[in-house]
Amino acid sequence: MNANHTILTGDRPTGPLHLGHYVGSLRQRVQLQHDHQQFILVADLQGLTDNGSNPQKISSNIFEVMADYLAVGIDPQKTTICLQSALPALAELSALYMNIVTVARVERNPTVKHEIAQKGFARSLPVGFLAYPISQAADITAFKAGLVPVGDDQLPMIEQTNEIVHKMNSLTTAPVLQHCRALLSEVGRLPGVDGSAKMSKSLGNTLTLSASEEEIHRAVSAMYTDPGHLRVADPGRVEGNVVFTYLDAFHPDKPLVAEMKAHYQRGGLGDRQCKDALEACLQTLLAPIRERRARFIADKGMLQELLRQGSERANGLTQQTLHEVKRGLGLPILF
Amino acid sequence: MNANHTILTGDRPTGPLHLGHYVGSLRQRVQLQHDHQQFILVADLQGLTDNGSNPQKISSNIFEVMADYLAVGIDPQKTTICLQSALPALAELSALYMNIVTVARVERNPTVKHEIAQKGFARSLPVGFLAYPISQAADITAFKAGLVPVGDDQLPMIEQTNEIVHKMNSLTTAPVLQHCRALLSEVGRLPGVDGSAKMSKSLGNTLTLSASEEEIHRAVSAMYTDPGHLRVADPGRVEGNVVFTYLDAFHPDKPLVAEMKAHYQRGGLGDRQCKDALEACLQTLLAPIRERRARFIADKGMLQELLRQGSERANGLTQQTLHEVKRGLGLPILF
Repeated sequence: MNANHTILTGDRPTGPLHLGHYVGSLRQRVQLQHDHQQFILVADLQGLTDNGSNPQKISSNIFEVMADYLAVGIDPQKTTICLQSALPALAELSALYMNIVTVARVERNPTVKHEIAQKGFARSLPVGFLAYPISQAADITAFKAGLVPVGDDQLPMIEQTNEIVHKMNSLTTAPVLQHCRALLSEVGRLPGVDGSAKMSKSLGNTLTLSASEEEIHRAVSAMYTDPGHLRVADPGRVEGNVVFTYLDAFHPDKPLVAEMKAHYQRGGLGDRQCKDALEACLQTLLAPIRERRARFIADKGMLQELLRQGSERANGLTQQTLHEVKRGLGLPILF
Repeated sequence: MNANHTILTGDRPTGPLHLGHYVGSLRQRVQLQHDHQQFILVADLQGLTDNGSNPQKISSNIFEVMADYLAVGIDPQKTTICLQSALPALAELSALYMNIVTVARVERNPTVKHEIAQKGFARSLPVGFLAYPISQAADITAFKAGLVPVGDDQLPMIEQTNEIVHKMNSLTTAPVLQHCRALLSEVGRLPGVDGSAKMSKSLGNTLTLSASEEEIHRAVSAMYTDPGHLRVADPGRVEGNVVFTYLDAFHPDKPLVAEMKAHYQRGGLGDRQCKDALEACLQTLLAPIRERRARFIADKGMLQELLRQGSERANGLTQQTLHEVKRGLGLPILF
């Protein structure tokens, strides 16, 4: 285990996590924690960058996300779970980095550009949102993370972080910051149960990790399949068929899924049977997660204590990076 | 002494302070410290907003400015002198405020607009510079300062701060932040010794507080007077005559200055005599300041210890404000 095996990852606490998070990141984190030094940041400050006028949306979801982490098997003995707003070094490093990044450069960041358009900010763009790639660079570098799990839409963020690393290292008496690289997720983004590319709570096309048996049943029953597959005997399409996308993502028996696909494509396999198979595997997956999650969320004191311990550990590490940067810039360390 | 008598003021440590600072703020601070709770912030982070690529310019001037403060009579028993980068709550509050201020709003701030044009940033405007009114609002509100000594060109900063106060107080469960008001300086800006409106080290038209006897003599000798005043017997102009502007600013005997002005205007008073009077009073003013300053700057350990003590006191206060804001937003306080 060396420095390059330090991972920083995290989530904006804007709502309880769902199956998309499970497939896109949570499952991977549970694996990675065994042979990496992994930090998970509950990014409440970043969540506020586009919820500045609705802070309760963020604050009320911090422990929801914590409970999700523990429920899926993130082990606080192996992974440090910490709270962004509890780590002053992150805001302090941001403040320093902001002076070496131009407004023109962040405006050119394709991820930011896309998100600004998507969120329809126009003239109401908050300064904090414009600056969030810099804050993200502060997060990554404060932990000296060498690996950052991201989707490919987030690659410009890694590039921007490494630019900041390069520039800061040229300003400090000796290089302090470490370059990082993206750890690209192997699986694509999970579509919504209605087949739309984006899964989101507001679209109502998702299943949270605390979904009840009944909610799972209803979601799978209503799931988008192949609209041209009218009779069981007809050949059906598996591409764009959400049931098969989910079977690929969740079913543990890959050969069986391959066999089902072939059967469906040549005709003779009904949607009902496919959905039953998917529902069974989702019920099996989510039942213990739901049960553990309910226990955790009922004990806010324990969640807060775990978050405190993790944040304390992270605080030590990030303070050290801040001190190294300050010393490198010639700023006095008074205490 | 109530909350509204708390004063926050300070300087960007971009160079040793000069006579312009003495007249514009230092002298006033020495008075104010007797009946106000006064905090002076050595604003190194703000100094970096337009010196991000030249951090040594800022770091090398922190103790220079400290020495200036003590030399003019700022009493660390009465005034808390503290370092911006040593107070994490300031960067943390900034990060929170940035989410409730739009890019459009800071771009519209007349002071920022003017400074951006003046500094010729164009496409190279750093994010930190664009955001500095927000960071200034964080400074003022963190100390719960009710009074902020400023020049009238800085009034838009006070307005922006109060907007942030208003908005944040509407978001927290109960109002946390205090509105502030400007304490306008009675005296105008001191012109350079060459008569130009702006006094700056780079223009070479200033006298620092550590100026030697010889430097004072040369500066006064070369000082801009009335170019039409060719013979002693001629009537002279006192408006725009830097010698009289400085006599107004520095000579303790106001009736004598009034008499000199009248004499000069009707003719018969030579520039030489006026300059001698001014030089005598500047030598008298600066000799003890220079002597004390030399002693202080020779003892960096003492300066650092005073800055540490002041920053520790300020840290307690600003952390408390940060905690109140966080609690008001519903964010957990973990430690």
